[in-house]
Amino acid sequence: MRISFCCADSKPEPWLDGLRAALPQAEISLWESGAPPADYAVVWAPPQQFFDEQNQLRAAFNIGAGVDALLKLRLPPGTQLVRLEDAGMSVQMAEYVCHALIRHFREFDAYEADARQGQWSFRKPRLRADWPVGIMGLGVLGKRVAKAVSGFEFPVLGWSRSQHAIEGMRCFAGGGQLDDFLSASKVLICLLPLTPDTRDILNRRNLSRLQPGGYVINVARGAHLVDEDLLQLLDSGHLAGATLDVFRTEPLPTEHPFWRHPKVLVTPHTSARTLRDETIAQIAGKIVAMEQGQTVAGVVDLGRGY
Amino acid sequence: MRISFCCADSKPEPWLDGLRAALPQAEISLWESGAPPADYAVVWAPPQQFFDEQNQLRAAFNIGAGVDALLKLRLPPGTQLVRLEDAGMSVQMAEYVCHALIRHFREFDAYEADARQGQWSFRKPRLRADWPVGIMGLGVLGKRVAKAVSGFEFPVLGWSRSQHAIEGMRCFAGGGQLDDFLSASKVLICLLPLTPDTRDILNRRNLSRLQPGGYVINVARGAHLVDEDLLQLLDSGHLAGATLDVFRTEPLPTEHPFWRHPKVLVTPHTSARTLRDETIAQIAGKIVAMEQGQTVAGVVDLGRGY
Repeated sequence: MRISFCCADSKPEPWLDGLRAALPQAEISLWESGAPPADYAVVWAPPQQFFDEQNQLRAAFNIGAGVDALLKLRLPPGTQLVRLEDAGMSVQMAEYVCHALIRHFREFDAYEADARQGQWSFRKPRLRADWPVGIMGLGVLGKRVAKAVSGFEFPVLGWSRSQHAIEGMRCFAGGGQLDDFLSASKVLICLLPLTPDTRDILNRRNLSRLQPGGYVINVARGAHLVDEDLLQLLDSGHLAGATLDVFRTEPLPTEHPFWRHPKVLVTPHTSARTLRDETIAQIAGKIVAMEQGQTVAGVVDLGRGY
Repeated sequence: MRISFCCADSKPEPWLDGLRAALPQAEISLWESGAPPADYAVVWAPPQQFFDEQNQLRAAFNIGAGVDALLKLRLPPGTQLVRLEDAGMSVQMAEYVCHALIRHFREFDAYEADARQGQWSFRKPRLRADWPVGIMGLGVLGKRVAKAVSGFEFPVLGWSRSQHAIEGMRCFAGGGQLDDFLSASKVLICLLPLTPDTRDILNRRNLSRLQPGGYVINVARGAHLVDEDLLQLLDSGHLAGATLDVFRTEPLPTEHPFWRHPKVLVTPHTSARTLRDETIAQIAGKIVAMEQGQTVAGVVDLGRGY
């Protein structure tokens, strides 16, 4: 069995060493043009040429949860695309979102600014019943975030393409229930896959339906958000702020207004990082299962795009 | 039945109105010197004169979890002292502690400073296995905080006066196991009651036993912490930082070095505020129970001091 590794932005050696340790029976190499055809690939943002040449793959494993970048490429027919599931990312996502949510709800940012001035300040406590948290996307990450947010006793609402029933949570589905979901939410957390249906979904029309004083946390993809629409709604005062981890162009360009907007917190795509050991263990396990003829979870439905 | 209300720093009217609505059969009034003897009292930091005159109380209800200020007073013999239990405080405490812990562990403070400079930065992810969180005090608040911290998959340790067995947590008890607890902890969260045994417990000897790069979160009482000892250990580099919500003198005096220390975050005793509606409901419920001859939870053991 041959496995080809082709991941932009990752030092290959520790990945190759880890994969070799996990799959000693396999021949694992860093992809280069002209290499012999492999059975499996481990990829992150490969060039089109990779799939043009590696056209006998049983499966390509993406070392991230979002496969939108891969779906822009022409994939060889018969190759299954497998996204990463959790692998240590969901706890990071829950941490990131809860930190951003609590920081805004409890006004710890304002307390910190007061403290820098040496001010012992008083703020009236907010009632969490007035802060319903709407989560868009109810996959592995969305469900974990919902559970963490529920643990802090916020009312939690969920919206996804297909209907879910999740305990302790009001669930909405599809375009027909989007407005009801938005108007019942004050904080909006985006954890959607990026597909033609969800691109630009955080636009003026939709964001203006959030409750007044709304807050946006985007941890999915930059292309979900129409940047100018968010800025307008922040400046009009309808929205109170946003914490953004993902952007249309990354790194976020120096001249982008998000960097300097007083109501926007920018983080450098750090909400949930791929953890090498967990990722290798998951991919190796799935390869072993596929070799034994089993089906594996996380196979991308090319029609729906995730 | 007569109930006397005597709480410094609280506007009395909404409390009196709320207590009257919850206990319509009772005669409820704001305490003043010379008032007739009441059966129950609702108090926060009353003067000694209050207990000198109100010496026929069956019980005095403190509208906070910590009763250290009351125990400095001479109480009338036969009066039970009842502390507030949870009443909406434990979720706030869990929020406060998780925000401080995640902020430090995930380096969101550093990312924010980078963002203010327009810098798209990279930091190596930390392994949570290297960040054991030790919780001192395993009462209602400590247990809730432990559960919330466990939800983010940190190793959690607990220390208290008496032995506890709590699932998913290594529990230590008493002076004999304090050193083992401290040396196994990197983050230390203080949620202890303030008693003669716990005063000054966060001192140089004990804090220096934390793992190198340790972090201190004090949400109990200022007198648990020896301020100069913390400052020395921060400056020597043994400790990485502290988030402090409580202080020996509150408001924290303008000239105190905590305000300006780059590794110390000061908040103005805001970690868990008393919520009026929940508090009134809890106290009213306990008064009804006591009138029916039942025992209630939260009665302070004057010998142990909490």
